[in-house]
Order: sequence, then structure tokens, then C-alpha cells
Amino acid sequence: MRKFAISPLRSENFPEWYQRVVKEADLAENSDVRGCMVIKPWGYAIWENIQRVLDDMLKKNGQQNAYFPLFIPLRFMEKEASHVEGFAKECAVVTHRRLQLNDGGKLVPASPLEEPLVVRPTSETIIGESFSRWIHSYRDLPIRINQWANIVRWEMRPRLFLRTLEFLWQESHTVHETREEAEMEAEKMLHCYREFAEHYMAVPVLCGEKTEMERFPGALRTLCIEAMMQDRKSLQAGTAHFLGQNFSRASHIQFIGRNGETQYAWTASGGVSTRLMGGLIMTHSDDDGLVLPPRLAPQQIAILPVIHREENEALVLEYCSELKRRIETVHYKNNPIKVVLDGRDINGGLKKWEWIKKGIPLILEIGPRDMERDSLCVLRRHGMEKYSSSVGEWIANLEQTLDRIQGEMLEQARSFREVNTQSIHSEGEFVEFFAQRGGYAVTFFAGDRKMEEAMKEKLNVTIRCILPPDGEGNCCFTGNKTVQKVVWAKSY
Amino acid sequence: MRKFAISPLRSENFPEWYQRVVKEADLAENSDVRGCMVIKPWGYAIWENIQRVLDDMLKKNGQQNAYFPLFIPLRFMEKEASHVEGFAKECAVVTHRRLQLNDGGKLVPASPLEEPLVVRPTSETIIGESFSRWIHSYRDLPIRINQWANIVRWEMRPRLFLRTLEFLWQESHTVHETREEAEMEAEKMLHCYREFAEHYMAVPVLCGEKTEMERFPGALRTLCIEAMMQDRKSLQAGTAHFLGQNFSRASHIQFIGRNGETQYAWTASGGVSTRLMGGLIMTHSDDDGLVLPPRLAPQQIAILPVIHREENEALVLEYCSELKRRIETVHYKNNPIKVVLDGRDINGGLKKWEWIKKGIPLILEIGPRDMERDSLCVLRRHGMEKYSSSVGEWIANLEQTLDRIQGEMLEQARSFREVNTQSIHSEGEFVEFFAQRGGYAVTFFAGDRKMEEAMKEKLNVTIRCILPPDGEGNCCFTGNKTVQKVVWAKSY
Repeated sequence: MRKFAISPLRSENFPEWYQRVVKEADLAENSDVRGCMVIKPWGYAIWENIQRVLDDMLKKNGQQNAYFPLFIPLRFMEKEASHVEGFAKECAVVTHRRLQLNDGGKLVPASPLEEPLVVRPTSETIIGESFSRWIHSYRDLPIRINQWANIVRWEMRPRLFLRTLEFLWQESHTVHETREEAEMEAEKMLHCYREFAEHYMAVPVLCGEKTEMERFPGALRTLCIEAMMQDRKSLQAGTAHFLGQNFSRASHIQFIGRNGETQYAWTASGGVSTRLMGGLIMTHSDDDGLVLPPRLAPQQIAILPVIHREENEALVLEYCSELKRRIETVHYKNNPIKVVLDGRDINGGLKKWEWIKKGIPLILEIGPRDMERDSLCVLRRHGMEKYSSSVGEWIANLEQTLDRIQGEMLEQARSFREVNTQSIHSEGEFVEFFAQRGGYAVTFFAGDRKMEEAMKEKLNVTIRCILPPDGEGNCCFTGNKTVQKVVWAKSY
Repeated sequence: MRKFAISPLRSENFPEWYQRVVKEADLAENSDVRGCMVIKPWGYAIWENIQRVLDDMLKKNGQQNAYFPLFIPLRFMEKEASHVEGFAKECAVVTHRRLQLNDGGKLVPASPLEEPLVVRPTSETIIGESFSRWIHSYRDLPIRINQWANIVRWEMRPRLFLRTLEFLWQESHTVHETREEAEMEAEKMLHCYREFAEHYMAVPVLCGEKTEMERFPGALRTLCIEAMMQDRKSLQAGTAHFLGQNFSRASHIQFIGRNGETQYAWTASGGVSTRLMGGLIMTHSDDDGLVLPPRLAPQQIAILPVIHREENEALVLEYCSELKRRIETVHYKNNPIKVVLDGRDINGGLKKWEWIKKGIPLILEIGPRDMERDSLCVLRRHGMEKYSSSVGEWIANLEQTLDRIQGEMLEQARSFREVNTQSIHSEGEFVEFFAQRGGYAVTFFAGDRKMEEAMKEKLNVTIRCILPPDGEGNCCFTGNKTVQKVVWAKSY
């Protein structure tokens, strides 16, 4: 068996493999600030692509971007009881506004604030304050606001992209005249996240609703997309919340309705974060490192000139530049294909492996022999398949080739999920499933929150989501008839 | 004299006029968090355009985007003495990581941190830590990193966009092998900011260097662009710093040079912020509100259907939709022209004034008579000029029209600056200049920091920048010969 670029292998130690993939692809690193990460250029370029695509999708859904304060006064947090309960344990608190030297010559915080400020763990309460000013009549509704921002939640066990003390995200906040409209809006947000995950990240997701136990603090309903990683654990990749009138009451978001009466508005919110990066990595990467879907790769193609003799150098580089220019005239999904020509004077093997580990979809190695034959030596990263092609034909089919890779990545992830999803009908079978390989266990469930908590305690397994209604069956634990079908899994 | 949309007028009370323009254009508002602003959709859309254009320019200059932690450990801040001295008075400090209810049932900060964290007032120290890990040899240089981020500096006298406790910015940080290269990089950054200000914002700027008194804490040289506002005060609109080896020494950014010896790297940094929005507003707006340059306007054109009788409504709206589609096929600076069709059922006069106050470059009012004649009734926001045109001709010339507006806005601002700039040769003349209208006073200056401080104390006037060398003359205060020519002004 050949040696792989990443050690340990996925099968040996998945969490450690993940850390190595992130490091070898140069995506991010831990900073000296406990729990905070540095997103390096290659990682950030992927995030920028995520932002660009998703931002367009959100705007098509009527969202308008805006920006609200990083700091939330303590009194705002207090307004919604379950909200503060949910976030109190992980809030970074600003208490001073100055530094000064103490008598020992040490720098210490000075000028304490009258009211401490919380660094936003989410922005419902602070955006709610603006909404209460902006909205007077039903004519001002609906309002759909999106914010790209950094968020702080104090994580005790941080992991790059998956759980970091500070992370980047988008948060949508909407206000509506009726309950139905707000619920529908949450569903629309979820649909948008699903489309994005499947069509751009090539990550298949389940759509469903959280049980009360896993609900967003303050929400009446939390909808989610869940994706199966290659260790068969589930990653919550995005959420949308129907907030009822909870935050309207807390922030006094009221309007004069069509009937002339003052009433509380109905709100919804939703978001996805840099956690998506973790999902992207754990869905597609292999034992040679990162594998990027063409639609989100910062560059689709790396051209590596192969120079064995110095006298060829100028010719080969000239040929590669010309090839780059030709490829860049091709469009993929309305954008010119992005090509990097890596002419660095370093060992050719090392250079190739750098690009493999970075997950670039296609690698072209070009030497004098290829130039003579007008042919290309292509390495397709997904599947690590090598093949040759004539230059003209290859370029003519390039858009199709990229689409095929994108499609096959989605299909491969979908097959993996299907193979690792099982319908389960009894507790014994359930316990056995998670004692073996595990994955997604689909069951009817008529139990209560206590039963969920017990299962979490016992097997470290939770309900990832309640599936849309689809017939009736017997609860796998109580045997009672129910229409509630759920998906259980270990999770991130 | 006709009534203007903004009260007070610029000439009556400039600061108050500014606040009204911001409010009436719906750009931003003060939040309930003291000193923090909410950037509303129309304001944020302008900022997004600024980001998009500038980001492309920075990338063309070799900058790569990345993201670094919001929090800076106290010990990092301490490393560069003048840096901490410069920022200590305005640092928000996180001291706790949790909230809990006290005995009185009040929510209070809990779990104090071992080491307090400063919310970044700028990122030299935290990014320097990463650089020290990334750089080993001269082959790793240069490095050019850009970050779009939020920044906190505790402002005691906040003003929307101009001075806010939290603001948004981009900060470039670069590392070089030689002193010359780092200095050149700072100049390159400044050049980029200048191009952006003049070509996109239509804001003419002076380029120069700050005196020691106004230098960035920790820099050896601070370069700046300065723009004259309509109250003849100067706004520092962007800065670039040559940092020497100060931050390399503080963060141990070392590399093995071509001579095999370990040495400290040379660094530079630079940035522009949401303050640019303030500059944009105070350069171009008039007594009817905001005036936007076409290249940064979220939309270039508003179409307002004029409907006097209900039976015409469908026809007029259909005609306007078709017109919108036609205009949107025209490109302006490689982007399709953006058009808003405002079909809201509100008073037509109010509606028109909303768009005037929002500064949209061109407003089209379309009624049945215009439809019959195949003509347009156009209001050009800059200059408030009204004219008619045939539809076809107007669309054919649209790109030129927008370019002409963009150019005339720059020219008007440039003339204003020139009229209000004066070469001054004696202290008496100098005092007289600022006792009268004031503006930019250009003088030779051979004095010292004390003299600058005295002038600030006495007239509230500072040296905005040292101009590039251009001959010799006599200091307007000491009479001594010098080659140092400077620009004095009151400033924001």
C-alpha cells in the first residue's frame, strides 16, 4: 500500500487526522489567545467564496445587509429569560475601558464601566432594539436584515472551525406581521442553507426540527440542517429559528396592525458560521488531505511546470503562462476559472504534494514532452485519478469536468450517508447500532425529554432532528404509536 | 429662496447638518450602546461597495485576506512601549467569561480571567505573533496580509462614522526583508488609498507624512491622505505606517537572511475605515442631503412612476419595469447599472425627496405623458439639475452621463479645496487666516514639536501632513530656512 500524505489515517484517529488536514492544507492555526483561531489565506479564501455565494442567495431572498454593535449591555441580555440562561455560561464580559500601570509597573484594567458589556454571542437582543425603533405600522413589515459578523461564545474545548471561542458567521433577523409568515421565513432560511450546502459545498444534509432539548434559547422552533461526517458523527451545519413573539416582547417590537390595534411582531432568525469549513473538510477530505469542491475552491487548477534542464526553463514557463491564459478564458458558473501557475523553484514532488494537500481540484504537470505532444498530464484530486488528454479537448470539456467532480463529490457523500443510515425498531437494535459502527439511526420516537437525556448520558447519542411527518409507527423505546420520526446520532 | 430638505443648512451649523444628512439618508443611527452605531442598509450597501472595490485593489497589490483574533492578551500589548502608551487610554478590556445571578437576583460578571484580554484597537501585536511563526527564511518574504475587521477604541466624544467606539476597517500588515522594501510598501498602500479616494469616492486628497506628534504609536513614519471637508476642516482618511523593526523586535519576527544570519524583519501596516463614509458625506452632500458618486452608489438610478389616475397604474408600472430592464443591460465600470423601481403607494413628492436625500445619482419620473412622448424627465442629484431627453438617446449616453457626474464631483471638491488653500508666510497672516474662514494653510516650517503643540493649544490647528520636498523657503514662524513644507488645518 502506498504511503498517504496525512498521518494518522482517518480510520486510525479521526480527530487527529482532522487537525493534520487543516494544518497541511494551511487553512488555519490556533492562536496564542486560548480558543481563538487564525484563519490563514487559503482557509479565508474558501470562506470568502462561501460568503460571496451565500450573500447573493440571501439577497435574492430579500435580505438586506446591515451592521449592529459588537457589545450588548447586560440589561438587554436579561430581557428574555431562557435566552440569558442559554448563553450566560459562555459570555465574554467587558468591564473596563482603559489600561494603566499599577504601582508594581504592571499593566492592569482601569476605569470600570457602570454597566458591563457582553461581547455578542448572537444578536437577537441588540438588533431587537433597533427593530423596535424602526417599526411602527404593518406597512413597515416584513423586515429582513442580515449581518456578517464575529461572535464570541466561551468554549472550554475548542477545535479549529468546529468550536472556537470567536467565530465568523452570518445572522439573519426578520420581523413579520403574522405567525405564519415568520414560521415560513424560518423555513425559507433553512431551504437556502440546504441549497447552499448541497449545490456548493457538495455536502448532503438532512432538514428537520430540533427537539426542545436542543432548541435555540428563546426559540419556539429551531430548524436545522445536519450533515454526516466521515466518522459517521453528525454536524449541525446551519439553523433557523421561529422565535414567536418572545423577542418582540423582550425588545418591545410592536406595530399598529391592519385592524388599528397595537400588537407584538413575530420574528425569526437563522445563521451559518465558519463551522461550515469544518463540515466541508470532514465530508470530503481523504488520507492525502483536503479535497475541495470546484465551486468553492479559491483556484480550480494548479499548473506545475516540470523543468529538468535549465535550458528548457524559459520555454516551459512561457508555455505554461500561455496555457494559464487560455484556461482563464473559460467560465465556470459565471466566473472565469481561476488558475495558479506555481513556478517556485522548489522540489517538484514536494510542490505537487502541497497542492494535493490543499485540495485544489485539478493539477497539471507540464514538461517538454507534454509540450511536444500538445498533451496534458492531469491529476484529478477527488479520487486521485491520473489521466492524459490533448490540450484543446481538455479545455473544451473543462466546465463539464468541473461539474462532474462537483456532482460526484455530492453523490459520494450521499452514498456514504445512506450506507450509514439505518431504520431501527427496538432499543436493543439501537444500542447495538451505536456499539458497532454507528451513524444515523432513524426511529419513531414517542418518548420525552428525560428519555433523550438518558440516551445522551448512556450512549452519547442525541436526536439530531425530527423529520418531516411521514406516516405512523411504533416508538423504538416505548412501543407506543407515534407520527414522530427522528434521527439519532453522535454529534459535534 | 426655496426651502431645502436639510435643516440646519451647512452654512448655519455644519455638525448638526451632518447628523441630519446621515439621518435623512437613513445611513446609520446611534445605538443604545454608548458610542456604538448601527449601520443601516443604505449605509452598509455603500460600505460594501467600498469594500468590494478596495479589496480588488489590495489583492492586485499582492495582499491576501486572512482573519486574526478579536482579543489580544495584555502581555502582547505591553511588548511595544509607545504602542501600549498610545492605546492604553482607549482599550475595552474583557475580564470575565461568564454571567451569573448574584444573591440579589441581578446578573453579574463571573469567572474572572487569569489574564485580561483587550478588544483589538489595531492588530499589529496579535498578527505579529503569527508572523513570527510563519517566517523562517528570507524566502518566506515578503508577506502581505489584509484583514477586514471590527475595531474598538473607547471614544469619549463619538460621532456617527467619524468617531465611534466600534468601527469597521481593513488593516494591511506586511513583512519585508529590507528597510527600503518596507518603506516602499507603506508608500504603495498610501498610493492605493489615494487612487481609491479620488477615482471612486471623488474625494481629492493630499498625500504626505505625519509629524512625530501625530504619528501612529510605534511607527517610524506615518503617511496619510487628508481630505478637506465643506467646513474647511481636514479629515484624515487613511494612513500607512513604516514600522521599522519595532514590532519585529516586540513579536520576534526574525528570519535567516541571504547572508545566513538571523535578523529582524521590517514591517509596514495601513488601513482605512468606516470613517471614509463620513468623508464621503461631508465632501459632497448639500442642503438637500446626501450626494453619492455613481461608482459607489448602491443603485445609480431610481425610477418613480407618476400615477394620477388609477386606470393608468398597470400601464405605467409595466412601462417602468420595461425601462428598468433596458437600463440594466447597460454596464458601468464592468457592472450592470443598478436601478430601483419605487412603486410604493405613497405621496409622490415625499417619495422623490426620499431619493434626493438618499443621494441616488439620477431620478426618473415617468408618467403617461412621458410614455406618449417616449421621453424622460430626469433629475440629476449632483447640482439638482432637471432635464428632459428621449429615452433611446438617454440610455445610449448613460455610461458617459454617470462618468461626467463622477468627474464633476471630483472637480468640484478639488476647486473647493483650492479656493480654501493658501500659502502663508508669516505668523500674523497665519493667525489671521484661521481667524477668518480658515482652510489649508501651506507654510514652510522649521519649528519643533513644542511649537506644534502651542499652535494646537492656541488655534486648535495642527500639521495635517508634511508635503513631499519641493524647494526651500523660510519658516513662517521662525523665519529660518527649511525644505520642510507642511499643511496646517483644523481637523476631525
